[in-house]
Amino acid sequence: MGEIIDGKKISSQIKEEVKSKIDELKSRGITAGLTAVLVGDHPPSQVYVGMKSKACQQVGINSEVLKFPQDTSEEKLLSLIDDLNKRSEVHGILVQLPLPPQIAEDKVIQRIDPRKDVDGFHPFNVGMMIAGEAVFLPCTPFGIQELLLRSGNDPSGQHVVILGRGNLVGRPLSVILSQKAPGGNATVTLCHSRTKNIGELAKEADILVAAMGKPLFVKRDMVKEGAVVIDVGVNRIDDPQAKKGYRLVGDVDFEGVKDITKAITPVPGGVGPMTVAMLLFNTLKAAKLQKEI
Amino acid sequence: MGEIIDGKKISSQIKEEVKSKIDELKSRGITAGLTAVLVGDHPPSQVYVGMKSKACQQVGINSEVLKFPQDTSEEKLLSLIDDLNKRSEVHGILVQLPLPPQIAEDKVIQRIDPRKDVDGFHPFNVGMMIAGEAVFLPCTPFGIQELLLRSGNDPSGQHVVILGRGNLVGRPLSVILSQKAPGGNATVTLCHSRTKNIGELAKEADILVAAMGKPLFVKRDMVKEGAVVIDVGVNRIDDPQAKKGYRLVGDVDFEGVKDITKAITPVPGGVGPMTVAMLLFNTLKAAKLQKEI
Repeated sequence: MGEIIDGKKISSQIKEEVKSKIDELKSRGITAGLTAVLVGDHPPSQVYVGMKSKACQQVGINSEVLKFPQDTSEEKLLSLIDDLNKRSEVHGILVQLPLPPQIAEDKVIQRIDPRKDVDGFHPFNVGMMIAGEAVFLPCTPFGIQELLLRSGNDPSGQHVVILGRGNLVGRPLSVILSQKAPGGNATVTLCHSRTKNIGELAKEADILVAAMGKPLFVKRDMVKEGAVVIDVGVNRIDDPQAKKGYRLVGDVDFEGVKDITKAITPVPGGVGPMTVAMLLFNTLKAAKLQKEI
Repeated sequence: MGEIIDGKKISSQIKEEVKSKIDELKSRGITAGLTAVLVGDHPPSQVYVGMKSKACQQVGINSEVLKFPQDTSEEKLLSLIDDLNKRSEVHGILVQLPLPPQIAEDKVIQRIDPRKDVDGFHPFNVGMMIAGEAVFLPCTPFGIQELLLRSGNDPSGQHVVILGRGNLVGRPLSVILSQKAPGGNATVTLCHSRTKNIGELAKEADILVAAMGKPLFVKRDMVKEGAVVIDVGVNRIDDPQAKKGYRLVGDVDFEGVKDITKAITPVPGGVGPMTVAMLLFNTLKAAKLQKEI
């Protein structure tokens, strides 16, 4: 039976560490600030922004949420970003995605001052990550790296197989884990929808990361005995027994797989809480950078 | 016996295509221009800049080479870049690396206007590449992609194993070939000095790319029968029989490997000429972009 990697517990440790640094900044008269921008009424986005805002409050980061209607123009949003770039008490800017169709997401992200881009999505920050000189790592892959390290599963020298090449998780994770740096040095295979024999490749993994967004895709016969399994998927499936009529499952068939693994993350309570913790970490870093501490 | 992939011939085709577009621009009164900056007296750099400049002339690109002494200050070089960014007849800027130790290479590269960064090294351009929206792909990996496509070895659906995670070749190539785009869609494994069982992984490759800078590293027992082998290495080894006292070899033991491959690139005459051809392609693209054509 594999160990369950407790993302809630590990993320709490990180939050504690961030809180003590935030307190230190406060004693010097600086309050780190994060502004979240929410456009429209996409329900999951409202939930995510609420969670992030609450987490900020827990660690003493000044959190501001700016809400705009669904029909907000691109021009208006860009000029808002310009304002936020100028406000010295705003150290981090988070634009919750997706944006409504009349707004080009890449234009908005490229407008954020890279020094305030705590999501790590600005092309400049992505480029710095590739060069091994990242200022802000994107929160989910960064969280997965921390989860591995703090659960005693250093990726160095391991064969990591990542299922899913998305720009939010799979792609940047493949870069972070294969880099010549502490916490990296893995041999990484990046698989996706066009991969042949994906099951065979998955079974080679010492560390298998599922980030395809396909519910229960990874079955027992795709996992090597003794592998570490990281499940990034968050999928709703119908469940008449459940109060809400659905339940959340990952990309991994947790029940079928867990007993042959060395360690495995649950859904929920695995990768999810780490993303928020790393956002707090990045906001702290942004505040320190901008105050030249 | 594997087919020899003729990089000289394929690069000549690309140069012809670029030349005809350059001629078209000229008929509209526009001459594409590339300025190369060479600092110090590193002999291979002088050879490379000479080759690039000559290739520009062949296709009708206006080529300028600015040479500076070894003790040039960083400040002076940065202010030169500012000038080149402003000059409207300079569409592409190429700073030949390496630079002398008193100059921070990343500072210089970040100073280049991303729209003139025909090497594709600016973090903004690297970030855009990751996002699948590249303006300028870095020339060597871009050349390898073209070499594969034009020799009838589309990487789509193939397992590509890349040996070497450097920022000039291995790393960006892993991104380009695994992207969800024509010429991409490969399953990519990125190996490096910390990879265990590198021989076994190499042997899984449908397309094997050697970019470690280790002379004759890839031996026959590391190559699957029928694989395509791309050799990026250019290494000098002593050879008393040769006129210059040395000869060039790749990272692949060409003689030992060639007869079990489907196709293989020679050294020299494989990847090398492609790098220069893609630089011309990028300079043409830069001129069109800046003239909004």
